[in-house]
Amino acid sequence: MAHRILAVALPPLPEVQPGDDLPAFIAGAWRSAIATEPELAPTEGDVLVVTQKVVSKAEGSVVDLRSVQPRPEAIAFAERWDRDARQVEVVLREAAAVVRMERGVLITRTRHGFVCANGGVDASNVAADTVTLLPEDPDRSARAIRERLAALLDLPPARAPAIVVSDSFGRPWRWGITDVALGVAGFGPLDDQRGRPDTAGRVMRSTIVAVADEIASAAELASGKTSGRPIVLVRGAVLPAGDGTIRADVVMPPENDLFP
Amino acid sequence: MAHRILAVALPPLPEVQPGDDLPAFIAGAWRSAIATEPELAPTEGDVLVVTQKVVSKAEGSVVDLRSVQPRPEAIAFAERWDRDARQVEVVLREAAAVVRMERGVLITRTRHGFVCANGGVDASNVAADTVTLLPEDPDRSARAIRERLAALLDLPPARAPAIVVSDSFGRPWRWGITDVALGVAGFGPLDDQRGRPDTAGRVMRSTIVAVADEIASAAELASGKTSGRPIVLVRGAVLPAGDGTIRADVVMPPENDLFP
Repeated sequence: MAHRILAVALPPLPEVQPGDDLPAFIAGAWRSAIATEPELAPTEGDVLVVTQKVVSKAEGSVVDLRSVQPRPEAIAFAERWDRDARQVEVVLREAAAVVRMERGVLITRTRHGFVCANGGVDASNVAADTVTLLPEDPDRSARAIRERLAALLDLPPARAPAIVVSDSFGRPWRWGITDVALGVAGFGPLDDQRGRPDTAGRVMRSTIVAVADEIASAAELASGKTSGRPIVLVRGAVLPAGDGTIRADVVMPPENDLFP
Repeated sequence: MAHRILAVALPPLPEVQPGDDLPAFIAGAWRSAIATEPELAPTEGDVLVVTQKVVSKAEGSVVDLRSVQPRPEAIAFAERWDRDARQVEVVLREAAAVVRMERGVLITRTRHGFVCANGGVDASNVAADTVTLLPEDPDRSARAIRERLAALLDLPPARAPAIVVSDSFGRPWRWGITDVALGVAGFGPLDDQRGRPDTAGRVMRSTIVAVADEIASAAELASGKTSGRPIVLVRGAVLPAGDGTIRADVVMPPENDLFP
């Protein structure tokens, strides 16, 4: 049992460019934090939450809008709703399915299976005329960051911090966005408590906790959107064992979804 | 800017019964925690996250299933899907609208406007043949807890800790539940960042962060489902000013919802 969670936003990273060694930046930020607070040195159970934005930038999942020719549908939608037609075009290109396109809102299901506004195509915190796409395979991104961090920090692979690649998603029925996990490495993103007794000794039938998503949300509280601190160390969570992925474990096939 | 979030599950409460003075239990648990860790004493910006279960128990939002006569529809659904017909009956009574009722899953929109499995009617962590309902007005519950806590802790009302009443909800498209806020007191549940510049100096057009929900999720990581620790102190979050409510600020009127 955890009982205590600490989430610390590491110092700001340098501006990330395509091809940059993001894990080296992360290791540098972590070392700076440790220099002032030695108790932040790597400990078993540590999770580093890395926002999608810096992962996409480092991987080159970036589109220069000046190279984009919007289709007529994108132009019409953008004109009607005061949006950038080139960005609408990129969202449509990235979509496996358009879930909703009305009142200026464009919700798609991405190739990964994520259902979100603008398919994760994002113009915030990037240079003008540029958007980031979601990483091609965020679980793979998380694994790669974890492996390289282990080497950089001189840790045995099994003792490397777990990684969550996070992004901010809206959801139905409630205003506001929360951060969720797009990819994970080093733990199972769900805690399946079915079959365990509750405090009254009764066996729980349906409790599966989305631990990775809750970790992403806790990290967002520590970093905020405008602090320039895209890396958060989360310590104290009880991490389900195993090497799960968001794609296989958390993304729900549409045919399983009972919400409308 | 926060940069650092601490979530500490307070020591277990006594078993809560209808009519109990829940804030007195909370104050007692907090005092026990302070006795071993003086730095946990009330500080500006503290939030206490209180799970729905203990709020409902204290308020008497509890149903003895032995008194429930299920309607034929509830009996048929329960027989087909191996559920308790009396509990299904209670869910239907609590529902403003049935969103989905198939494959053993019953999703409703409650009177509060929450869309969730079983309308928040819950048999876990309660005695046999008993279920809890959602609190009648979770924002009011939060305000009442906050006011009484201020008195018990001898704090001026404005310096009382903020309160979140939390519950675990599933969501579309992703497996697993996360904790969200059903009610709040002492802060605004949304951080509306529209109009603020991002790190690239560009004005953000659509960023509204569901701070109260992220606080609820962070708290769940610290308490877990079976620890008997329903109260979590969350410290360090940047709390939006104002006296918002979940009902007015977060629950989305169905006609505004663009998700399908």
